[in-house]
Amino acid sequence: MKTIINPLKKDWKKIVERPTKTVDDIEKTVNQIFDDVKRNGDAAINKYTQLFDGVSLESNLVSSDEIQDAILLVSEELKGAIKLAKENVTNFHIAQKTEKVSIETTKGVFCWQEKRPIQKVGLYIPGGTAPLFSTVLMLAVPAQIAGCKEIVLCSPPNKEGKIHPAILYTAQLCGVTKIIKVGGIQAIAGFTFGTESIPQVYKIFGPGNQFVTVAKQLATKFGVAIDMPAGPSELLVVADDSANASYVASDLLSQAEHGADSQVILVSTSKELIQQVSEEIEKQLLELPRVDIAQKAIHNSKSIFVENDAIALELINEYGPEHFIVCTNDTDFYVNNIENAGSVFIGNYTPESAGDYASGTNHTLPTNGFSKAYSGVNLDSFTKSITFQKITKEGIKKIGNAIELMAAAEGLQAHKNAVSIRLKDLK
Amino acid sequence: MKTIINPLKKDWKKIVERPTKTVDDIEKTVNQIFDDVKRNGDAAINKYTQLFDGVSLESNLVSSDEIQDAILLVSEELKGAIKLAKENVTNFHIAQKTEKVSIETTKGVFCWQEKRPIQKVGLYIPGGTAPLFSTVLMLAVPAQIAGCKEIVLCSPPNKEGKIHPAILYTAQLCGVTKIIKVGGIQAIAGFTFGTESIPQVYKIFGPGNQFVTVAKQLATKFGVAIDMPAGPSELLVVADDSANASYVASDLLSQAEHGADSQVILVSTSKELIQQVSEEIEKQLLELPRVDIAQKAIHNSKSIFVENDAIALELINEYGPEHFIVCTNDTDFYVNNIENAGSVFIGNYTPESAGDYASGTNHTLPTNGFSKAYSGVNLDSFTKSITFQKITKEGIKKIGNAIELMAAAEGLQAHKNAVSIRLKDLK
Repeated sequence: MKTIINPLKKDWKKIVERPTKTVDDIEKTVNQIFDDVKRNGDAAINKYTQLFDGVSLESNLVSSDEIQDAILLVSEELKGAIKLAKENVTNFHIAQKTEKVSIETTKGVFCWQEKRPIQKVGLYIPGGTAPLFSTVLMLAVPAQIAGCKEIVLCSPPNKEGKIHPAILYTAQLCGVTKIIKVGGIQAIAGFTFGTESIPQVYKIFGPGNQFVTVAKQLATKFGVAIDMPAGPSELLVVADDSANASYVASDLLSQAEHGADSQVILVSTSKELIQQVSEEIEKQLLELPRVDIAQKAIHNSKSIFVENDAIALELINEYGPEHFIVCTNDTDFYVNNIENAGSVFIGNYTPESAGDYASGTNHTLPTNGFSKAYSGVNLDSFTKSITFQKITKEGIKKIGNAIELMAAAEGLQAHKNAVSIRLKDLK
Repeated sequence: MKTIINPLKKDWKKIVERPTKTVDDIEKTVNQIFDDVKRNGDAAINKYTQLFDGVSLESNLVSSDEIQDAILLVSEELKGAIKLAKENVTNFHIAQKTEKVSIETTKGVFCWQEKRPIQKVGLYIPGGTAPLFSTVLMLAVPAQIAGCKEIVLCSPPNKEGKIHPAILYTAQLCGVTKIIKVGGIQAIAGFTFGTESIPQVYKIFGPGNQFVTVAKQLATKFGVAIDMPAGPSELLVVADDSANASYVASDLLSQAEHGADSQVILVSTSKELIQQVSEEIEKQLLELPRVDIAQKAIHNSKSIFVENDAIALELINEYGPEHFIVCTNDTDFYVNNIENAGSVFIGNYTPESAGDYASGTNHTLPTNGFSKAYSGVNLDSFTKSITFQKITKEGIKKIGNAIELMAAAEGLQAHKNAVSIRLKDLK
């Protein structure tokens, strides 16, 4: 890790900058595949599955037999763990339900707001060696609580034409209504336009590589909503002498193993702790199976020493970390004043991996400073709010004149008329 | 209006289709201006103001003198109307405040969710002959209630280098912190990158022409959030024999005057009402100052007769109207079962213009079927939710093993280690 001592404020922007990637050459490929899927549906989908996943499938739909097989293949121990996690995630997201908001703004003017589920959602789960069944949990559980009618999951098949059993097991456990063996750009295109095997959806959720990320961005151009823009995962730890250096090191490494481009930052008011953490990282790093990846990420990472908590906080708000661990004497200061973060982990016994898997909070969070404007996935991500109003004769008499004046001032005569014609009858 | 009797379900998709526009040629222009503003800041901004708005300004910032002048120029009558509207909008959006959501998901595992304001927001208000001060109200009021620190408004200057006084009056009334005389693509680029005169913001709100729309879409590529994608305004009325044909006609016309591309649809179970409304439209239309625009929009619009309320509802949910007026015997049926709509207006005395100006609901709503996935602007649009967790020693002992199992199954050893290292100390 690169250590930076008391950086000048004018350099902060540089320090908190994420590595940017150009996606221009990817965009062309994504556009082509979208166009092809739009025109040719499953014929195009199957061509790309053959090309990118190296397999030709008889049917893209996962059958109930395949699901039954998967249930047998997952160990009872892992099933128990998934069920515990599901219960916590369920409880935390059920708690996010809100009541209808209803008021009479003026006598006779009744306004209310209600949340209704997004009817059709698409969940994208990447393939590869690490089966991200935990992400299935994080997306399907709130979708089901929200009341989404169609919860469709797409994930790429492996060379044998299969999806990992842990993903299938979790999907059926969490109410996914359809599982489809399609991945990458073509899956996102399928969600966007619909094909014979992939239903068109209104909103797409889930992580993916840079191809999937660019595809999701393109999907928004066709009116499909997405959970949030994506970037490499990141963790910022603020820690002082009250922290345990080996715990801090283990948390930083847990982030670093995600990928060589993972962002890991330690901010501290203690030079001693920075030193201790650095030594601990060297020690723990060598024991990791993904040591190469983690080493690269750690190499790009920063330890920043600052004079006090106030400066630390300002710097952290400027960065807007996805994951933010607070191991300091005064945790309240950070918890009460953090403006920009995806999810906050407090104290020595709250590792980030708790939130990644089983504490109950959602792990789909805004990276790349997007926490300045975006929420992590939560129950509301699967609903939209609709407003309603009902105005009585008395109500329109009370606010009618104001509407007429404002509409006239905006030059919208027909808007005014719609009120005048009613007021005339009520005279 | 074109009347369609009992359309076959296979034709619904065609019937509810919005006219699509190609934006490819606009995109090039938008990309160029973004690039220029990114590189050259205000020098580029001022060049485009000169080019598009035909005026050269000494300062882009609206001065306090200009604001004082504007306050004097707005009539007391209009001020009263704006204040009444502001009170209703304030009350309805304050009612949307939510408490912190907090639960103990497992003994010793405390999870909570809090909403925090987006610190910097940009409001875009179009120029032109109709000064949209009502949109200032709809965006600045919830921004202020949410607690946004910087509320920056951009609006194009007229040929005299001024912004309409009603816009300035409303902006100062509703807590806008900075008003800048810059419009169009260059304003959105300024919000995205920041310039000497325009602060960079985290989220951009507000309507605009197709150039602004494409610019907002491009802004998201640079990590700036936007309120929602935009399209031409639209209204769907469902009405039966209980409706007043002249009221319905006035509502349809109030939508039609927005622009020739406005979408106006009447769905009815009464052929008689369809006929009456058609006649009323012809009568009222001729008295409108914007008769040309409204006539074009009405020409493209549809009256659809269906056999019963159930079919009507299904069709309406397929369409997902921005504005939805319900004037039927059984309004509850529609109110309880509507899945996709921006804002719903119920009964004979609830014209759409009430919600456009003064009832309290927000008028920034999802068009183009986006109501299937997007909410209209509301208090939450100006906040993001952050999750927090604090786990005790007992808590990590309870869920630690599940995390270890799941992390191992996903091949993420360092995630597992972060828990194991703590559990070992607690043995």
